[in-house]
Amino acid sequence: MKMNVPAAVMLLFVFGCLLLMAPDSVFPTASPHLPVADSARVQAHLTELAHFGADPEGGGVSRVAFSDADVAGRAYVKRLMEAAGLAVRIDAAGNLIGRREGTDRTLPTIVVGSHTDSVPHGGNYDGDVGVMGGIELAQQLRDRHATLRHALEIVDFTDEEGGLVGSRAMAGELSPATLNLVNTSGRSVRDGIRALGGDPDAIGNARRGHGDLAAYVELHIEQGGTLEHTHTDIGVVEGIVGIHWWEVTITGVANHAGTTPMDQRQDALVAASELVLAVNSAATQFPGRQVATVGRIRAEPGAPNVIPGRVVLSVEVRDLDAARIEAVFERIRARAGEIARGRGTSIEFRDLEATAVPALTDPRIQRIIAGAAHELGLTTMGMPSGAGHDAQDIARIAPIGMIFVPSAGGISHAPREYTAPADIANGVNVLMHTVLAIDAGKLER
Amino acid sequence: MKMNVPAAVMLLFVFGCLLLMAPDSVFPTASPHLPVADSARVQAHLTELAHFGADPEGGGVSRVAFSDADVAGRAYVKRLMEAAGLAVRIDAAGNLIGRREGTDRTLPTIVVGSHTDSVPHGGNYDGDVGVMGGIELAQQLRDRHATLRHALEIVDFTDEEGGLVGSRAMAGELSPATLNLVNTSGRSVRDGIRALGGDPDAIGNARRGHGDLAAYVELHIEQGGTLEHTHTDIGVVEGIVGIHWWEVTITGVANHAGTTPMDQRQDALVAASELVLAVNSAATQFPGRQVATVGRIRAEPGAPNVIPGRVVLSVEVRDLDAARIEAVFERIRARAGEIARGRGTSIEFRDLEATAVPALTDPRIQRIIAGAAHELGLTTMGMPSGAGHDAQDIARIAPIGMIFVPSAGGISHAPREYTAPADIANGVNVLMHTVLAIDAGKLER
Repeated sequence: MKMNVPAAVMLLFVFGCLLLMAPDSVFPTASPHLPVADSARVQAHLTELAHFGADPEGGGVSRVAFSDADVAGRAYVKRLMEAAGLAVRIDAAGNLIGRREGTDRTLPTIVVGSHTDSVPHGGNYDGDVGVMGGIELAQQLRDRHATLRHALEIVDFTDEEGGLVGSRAMAGELSPATLNLVNTSGRSVRDGIRALGGDPDAIGNARRGHGDLAAYVELHIEQGGTLEHTHTDIGVVEGIVGIHWWEVTITGVANHAGTTPMDQRQDALVAASELVLAVNSAATQFPGRQVATVGRIRAEPGAPNVIPGRVVLSVEVRDLDAARIEAVFERIRARAGEIARGRGTSIEFRDLEATAVPALTDPRIQRIIAGAAHELGLTTMGMPSGAGHDAQDIARIAPIGMIFVPSAGGISHAPREYTAPADIANGVNVLMHTVLAIDAGKLER
Repeated sequence: MKMNVPAAVMLLFVFGCLLLMAPDSVFPTASPHLPVADSARVQAHLTELAHFGADPEGGGVSRVAFSDADVAGRAYVKRLMEAAGLAVRIDAAGNLIGRREGTDRTLPTIVVGSHTDSVPHGGNYDGDVGVMGGIELAQQLRDRHATLRHALEIVDFTDEEGGLVGSRAMAGELSPATLNLVNTSGRSVRDGIRALGGDPDAIGNARRGHGDLAAYVELHIEQGGTLEHTHTDIGVVEGIVGIHWWEVTITGVANHAGTTPMDQRQDALVAASELVLAVNSAATQFPGRQVATVGRIRAEPGAPNVIPGRVVLSVEVRDLDAARIEAVFERIRARAGEIARGRGTSIEFRDLEATAVPALTDPRIQRIIAGAAHELGLTTMGMPSGAGHDAQDIARIAPIGMIFVPSAGGISHAPREYTAPADIANGVNVLMHTVLAIDAGKLER
């Protein structure tokens, strides 16, 4: 529908008068006046944020947590939060938190969060979309002088990419050893938190307890190709998969590639290659959506004319069901035994600490998200999140929900990461309507 | 047989008198008075050489070509050559050459050679045994005041491990670009040759022509386990295998290991693993002694949680028959096409320059070696040399022969490299008798 200018001005005037008549009223969630994301504003904010740490070439971003670009980017996010009427504080873990009080001080807080740090040479959507979606919600509330029943907090979490540092601290689960890790910014987590305005020596103060949060909702790009592949607008996340990592060492005998006959070899790389294929087929032998990956491999001594005597590789298995992860691993381990015997090598598995248990989203919030999407005329599908998110830590202390929007080509953690403005607007609308529905008490019903 | 001391002294006296009666005579090769290696002396020389570049721990040696240890080690070898009555010079390529003139100046030179440089953290037998065997021959000739018909040269070649630099220059086949290579000593080949006393700007002067050498004989440790495995004393080398190296690049699509379903992956490492197994089985599908190896592999980006998008690996095939090498490679390439199609990847092969053509030893010298061994009561077997040797370059300008002695456990290029003193003495005896037989004209018969 096209509208002539005087008619549009008239409509805005009437709407403005209506708002002025009910300043700071409870938002009329049951009314047809649900907020609609200002897509141009959200895009402008994403574009401005992309300048912080922009890679000189290729259009990507390197806003690694604790880097100068991260510090500057978060200062920009803080200004947006303040402009959206939020009271901003930084907790002991460096999490940037903008708060809008609710009308009922007895109710717990609804939290909307994500992160603005990136991987090196990453893209401009992973994390950013969720933070900007939360700020758009706050801005809409301010613009409409609307107040929710619950207090609302928008959180830009600290160092998501380096190990969910901020959300883990908020859940009270950050291990003290993590503070000593040095990431690619060159700073330790301890020094980095300090650079963000946090207080690593009082990290426990960042902890929120059970019952402090009414709900946690996170909007994020899918980072995979399933939504695009199936032409679906919105992914209703069923949970964040558990991840189990192993480091596997295959030991054979390094020897001269010219003087060692084929039948006298104990080639660690030949055994490792059989293991890589076993990992791949272990994930596909079961029905389901589990995935298994060998992403890192090192053969020693690593010369073209020496039979590898030792190979170290990573094995990673992910699924929403921890028992399924173990079943896949048991199949890999059984096959490894056969390979070791067949190739005259040994194969040892070592559990790595960096593992996560599956974190399921709240079924009620899943229904609220799907309902909000359907009311907006959007298509939905239930799906696991194969990637880790801050939500998985918050799941330990509060009911969580996650909303996915399509990633073009399924690409993520790369400069070519892209989500179309219309898809982002859809996601922000679903996020806002979901929060309003939770605020209206739909979780209790 | 044990001998009491007076009898031994008597025998030595008689033998000495015989020698004095025929000073600097042609060595009586047809007589029962063939020289017998002084095993204790050879061992003492090897032990002394091992001090130059000795690793502080582990018993190995790092006497990388052009290193200070190499320079010092060669100065020691030069002293041994002089003590053995050889006239020592250093050619333009830095090769250390000790010469004993023959009685017939019209005859070409018989050359005995090997090398004393080592790989980093290598052993004390590879190369060293052949040089010390040659010096033992010269010492025996001096001790016996015997002169051969042919001039004899003992050569300690320059930088064998880094690419057969000295022997390649002697054959006139050293590429100018090689002079610019920098090895692990930190010196370029050019500067290294200068450090050894050579003249890289006149490298062509090191060249020897067709007909300049009557024969080239090299004693070397096997570096494999076949002689030990079959309880054989002496390997009669049939040739040095040709080597063909390829660099293979497998290109898939790097993607998030959590968000990319198994059926949407183009995993370069899964394809690479199939290729490693294809390389292995291509070598074993044919009868014969060909070998094929993947020694180096690199997966990118190389993170446990990212599906590898690119893998680069080395493929090496060796055989005495160049056509067999190509047949193995064609089988690998055909299988690579299937793998690429099956895994949604591309697989590209790039020929590397560092390839060698097979170098066959002279069948007459093979027979002389075997005959000498049998007369000494030693067992022999014909075998290929799977490793490269200086002999393969000299094969371009002269008939060559190679004598192998057992390597304990087949271990080489490692501190645990070992050949028993008795096996070394056997090899030196066969070397000496072979040279004497060639000198006596057995090549012409």
